[in-house]
Amino acid sequence: MAIVKEISLVGRVEACLLSPKRETGLEKAKANDLTLTFDGIVGDCHSGPTMLSDSRTLRQYPRGVTLRNRRQVSLISVEEMNEVARRLDISEVKPEWVGANVLVSGIPDFTLLPPSTRLMFASGATLIVDLENAPCKYPAEIIERHHPGHGLTFPEKAKHKRGLVAWVEREGKIVMGDKIRIFLPPQRIWTAGQDQLALASSS
Amino acid sequence: MAIVKEISLVGRVEACLLSPKRETGLEKAKANDLTLTFDGIVGDCHSGPTMLSDSRTLRQYPRGVTLRNRRQVSLISVEEMNEVARRLDISEVKPEWVGANVLVSGIPDFTLLPPSTRLMFASGATLIVDLENAPCKYPAEIIERHHPGHGLTFPEKAKHKRGLVAWVEREGKIVMGDKIRIFLPPQRIWTAGQDQLALASSS
Repeated sequence: MAIVKEISLVGRVEACLLSPKRETGLEKAKANDLTLTFDGIVGDCHSGPTMLSDSRTLRQYPRGVTLRNRRQVSLISVEEMNEVARRLDISEVKPEWVGANVLVSGIPDFTLLPPSTRLMFASGATLIVDLENAPCKYPAEIIERHHPGHGLTFPEKAKHKRGLVAWVEREGKIVMGDKIRIFLPPQRIWTAGQDQLALASSS
Repeated sequence: MAIVKEISLVGRVEACLLSPKRETGLEKAKANDLTLTFDGIVGDCHSGPTMLSDSRTLRQYPRGVTLRNRRQVSLISVEEMNEVARRLDISEVKPEWVGANVLVSGIPDFTLLPPSTRLMFASGATLIVDLENAPCKYPAEIIERHHPGHGLTFPEKAKHKRGLVAWVEREGKIVMGDKIRIFLPPQRIWTAGQDQLALASSS
């Protein structure tokens, strides 16, 4: 009766980050661990039961509509950030610069993990993936500040490499060095929809 | 920057159902409309900010662990229920019998809609799909009561036809006759994961 299935591949938590105040900007500071409640990460500015719609959801909502918070946790991977750094011709893209909460390793094509994938940490804390994160101009500006002349193409160079946003299914802790168990939903293409998507794009 | 895209296909709400008490069993009663809050459907026994893990999540959790409620709303389609009825050799499978909250029409292979698909109703109320619903023995027993000798194979005959579970992204109402707008996440197969899944199954 279970729908999701664990795979043998296991990831690893390489860094935990948070920032208490949104006003201090996107950059986050490293922490030893993160405490997850159903509202998100304790002490992080993106926690909360709800969030406001913004430019990301203009196809659905005007700005400022109250939505359930499904962007509680932002995750990126070492491997993808290395590739983005290579593309930007800089030595590294620090997780602090892109507002990530969790830096993972060992999961290929991390950003392409399917929606509704479950990521389970050693404490039992579990995140459910909503969507890939679309790279925007804010990290670009931060990278540009650190590496003038290299940051501004981040939105293009980080496409499908910028990680995921997820929300808390089960409370607990995420700790540096944690193994990450992965539970995948069935993977298949909804072909009826693909046809309709082509139709929608061409109209 | 938006990740989900609307398709031209539009569904329709054919029935709304709810049941105030879990003790009265799975069967739900028809209503003219449903009021959605971030906890789920007002007056339905499956609403609430959290839910307890059960047999569906034994691969991840023991029973009775508190999880965020991502099974707030159960949706099925007219077309799939007609197909299930045909397979069971009965005239119809009533939505009441399978504990559905919303009966939809006009969306082919409804159960196969991808996780994280957004379903938006006329009021602006929006659901996010978590996963397909796995058919279990409870509806089978109810159908068997109504059609002795025909219900017990429901779990097998309704596989991939039993609809979806979803949670509330935006509050509002679902009303009989509502059009349903569909916003799809990118569709693709995470091939790294498929390999690992094969590995996991064979081990």
